[in-house]
Amino acid sequence: MVLRVGVAGLGTVGAGVARMLAENGDVIAVRAGREIRVTAVSARQQGKDRGVSLAGLNWHDNAAALAGDPSVDVVVELIGGAEGPAKALVEAAIAAGKPVVTANKALLAVHGAALAAAAEQAGVALGFEAAVAGGIPVIKALREGLAGNRISRVAGILNGTCNYILTVMREEKRDFADVLADAQALGYAEADPSFDIDGVDAAHKLAILAALAFGRPVDFAAVHIEGIRNVSALDIRFAEELGYRIKLLGIARETEFGVEVRVHPAMVPIKTFLASVDGVFNAVLAEGDFSGTIMLQGRGAGAGPTASAVVADLIDIARGANIPVFGARVESLAGSPSVPAQKHVGAYFLRLMVVDQPGVLADVTAILRDCNVSLESMLQHGRAPGEAVPIVLVTHETNEGAMNQAIARIGKLGAVLEAPALIRIEGG
Amino acid sequence: MVLRVGVAGLGTVGAGVARMLAENGDVIAVRAGREIRVTAVSARQQGKDRGVSLAGLNWHDNAAALAGDPSVDVVVELIGGAEGPAKALVEAAIAAGKPVVTANKALLAVHGAALAAAAEQAGVALGFEAAVAGGIPVIKALREGLAGNRISRVAGILNGTCNYILTVMREEKRDFADVLADAQALGYAEADPSFDIDGVDAAHKLAILAALAFGRPVDFAAVHIEGIRNVSALDIRFAEELGYRIKLLGIARETEFGVEVRVHPAMVPIKTFLASVDGVFNAVLAEGDFSGTIMLQGRGAGAGPTASAVVADLIDIARGANIPVFGARVESLAGSPSVPAQKHVGAYFLRLMVVDQPGVLADVTAILRDCNVSLESMLQHGRAPGEAVPIVLVTHETNEGAMNQAIARIGKLGAVLEAPALIRIEGG
Repeated sequence: MVLRVGVAGLGTVGAGVARMLAENGDVIAVRAGREIRVTAVSARQQGKDRGVSLAGLNWHDNAAALAGDPSVDVVVELIGGAEGPAKALVEAAIAAGKPVVTANKALLAVHGAALAAAAEQAGVALGFEAAVAGGIPVIKALREGLAGNRISRVAGILNGTCNYILTVMREEKRDFADVLADAQALGYAEADPSFDIDGVDAAHKLAILAALAFGRPVDFAAVHIEGIRNVSALDIRFAEELGYRIKLLGIARETEFGVEVRVHPAMVPIKTFLASVDGVFNAVLAEGDFSGTIMLQGRGAGAGPTASAVVADLIDIARGANIPVFGARVESLAGSPSVPAQKHVGAYFLRLMVVDQPGVLADVTAILRDCNVSLESMLQHGRAPGEAVPIVLVTHETNEGAMNQAIARIGKLGAVLEAPALIRIEGG
Repeated sequence: MVLRVGVAGLGTVGAGVARMLAENGDVIAVRAGREIRVTAVSARQQGKDRGVSLAGLNWHDNAAALAGDPSVDVVVELIGGAEGPAKALVEAAIAAGKPVVTANKALLAVHGAALAAAAEQAGVALGFEAAVAGGIPVIKALREGLAGNRISRVAGILNGTCNYILTVMREEKRDFADVLADAQALGYAEADPSFDIDGVDAAHKLAILAALAFGRPVDFAAVHIEGIRNVSALDIRFAEELGYRIKLLGIARETEFGVEVRVHPAMVPIKTFLASVDGVFNAVLAEGDFSGTIMLQGRGAGAGPTASAVVADLIDIARGANIPVFGARVESLAGSPSVPAQKHVGAYFLRLMVVDQPGVLADVTAILRDCNVSLESMLQHGRAPGEAVPIVLVTHETNEGAMNQAIARIGKLGAVLEAPALIRIEGG
């Protein structure tokens, strides 16, 4: 009994899936217990050479038509985007009672709750291993491997483009704009890079991980998002000096007030796992009450790793697995509510550019005292009377609301020359 | 429909499983879709306090009786050992048509092929996530997450005791015997430590990983095994100087001659993943042709992590999963044959203790030349004419048979004072 696959979207990932199913067809059939074969596709350009033979397949101009194609048992959605044809196809496939595999994090993050309900109603699987961290089986690890644990925290490097840029900035002591331009030239960053560098892509993935880890309906709107545009080479150097690396992290953490779900640049201690993950690699750690901390690392993007995840989902379906989309029946997804970023309690790195003149530090520390922010350390290198110098302050654990009040007041001091740089400090 | 569990063996892991099912019963029921409850146990001492209530359970003096207990749907085997009551129980449970979950690597490594055939015949699941790398879902990652890939290499730090000893030896510049004694006092090593430090435990786990990665019947006899008794503080220091860490690795690798399956101390480059894993942590990496290298790290032993893996298998069973034991039907497990260690091709670290006198190095290098072993580098610190000094040689890639011939001849040189130390160099 062949499992017949319809693939929508034949970009690098779609072609990778077709190539993997062809090249590894023998081992896949043995492991899946049956052959898995592409029988239909939908893509914009039919003639294009994709490095894999597509002869004899059903072509559909309209992706949603794959759902109704009687030669298709399972639909693979690789179109992308939270709305439009991707969403229409997934909804149509579920409505037609066909399992779906998708790499679409935006779709899952924004409409995952409704799609999970629909899939459950229809009794079909909705696989999305490829939506988070590419070839690393992190969805499977959370939804199955750690399923007996209460998870207290999930943290990850979820965007390879950002991690690449931050790594090069550190290694080559270069500025953000400069490294971004190079990354674009090399194809590591998109022509319009905002989706990656403003943290939206990481936030989509984090929303999915948070839903799995904490048994909540996926809620993209609750994610606090900051990107890496404002990370400076100067702060990366200060981080090194203080024993930290700056990484764009996605963090979902259970607190006494609810679940924090946030994406932002963070300083992580140099000797920890997440600090050690450089370049385009992705990594995820999960803290379970019985398992302890589990760490996973690998390639988070690219045709091969993403195809590996898509095909793993197809093999699961071929083997007859049908695990609840977010790890539990939709009606059971209650979990803790989200907590606003202002409630966050943690340590902070604060860097000010100030005029080097008597009394500035006294003014700054008085404001911090008034806002109940206590300091762990202070750093000012050299002297340049009357000129601009950086001052670095590291706080003890403090409330983010208090910190923001303090920064607003500090920013108004006459001797403070630019907006203060604030970076959260996290365990790695 | 409750899933009723019979647990054989109530040591730390068995008690951990009972505690996890009790303490996390709410989330486990939601995720599994049904309650999972211990209904029967077998252990030597009935009265002992295990930190979890066992009131109202069926007690069996004979573990194998759990297989016939009508109040038991699934059997958890935590007795340990490749033979005796553990094997009898697993066979009886399978024969009774009951799924089995076990943490028993020795049993799986030695009798896994026959047990897999029996389980497949009976149509029941045989889960063993807990047998390798404790709380890290590495069985699931290989058998499901990477199922679409051809795996070229699996390598791991599979024994926490050895990794702890090697880490302390390096950090505190102490000798093996000294650190082992401390580890025993701290409970990190057994009173009879040979199972761990001679590499047998790691070899059991590696045999299982090799079967999964390469689609072969599990074959413990084919594993080449060396432990860490002969690793010296001196060689650890030389390793550091050359840019390596010494780790006890389990490695299964596809070569042109067949699959190498070997456990031995290895030098891995300091900046690589496996080199960074210190203390009692375990880690596994797998290289897939599409996924690239996937790395997993976490706690490989202890009540909590092992219970986490056992309960994950129980949840899979409650969810209705029944994946072929070694990832494919037993009749399909062909894969490549094993290759003897003599066929290994790699680089080597060779350390000699020699009398510091003219001509020694000429004799040594002549033998290496005659055996077709070419050198990448040589290291001799200081001079001590007429006394014993260490000489370190690092070879280019060479054949292990040739290397062993060379060592046999070098060891017979009059100026060579003790058996040469040979450590393979591996990618990390």
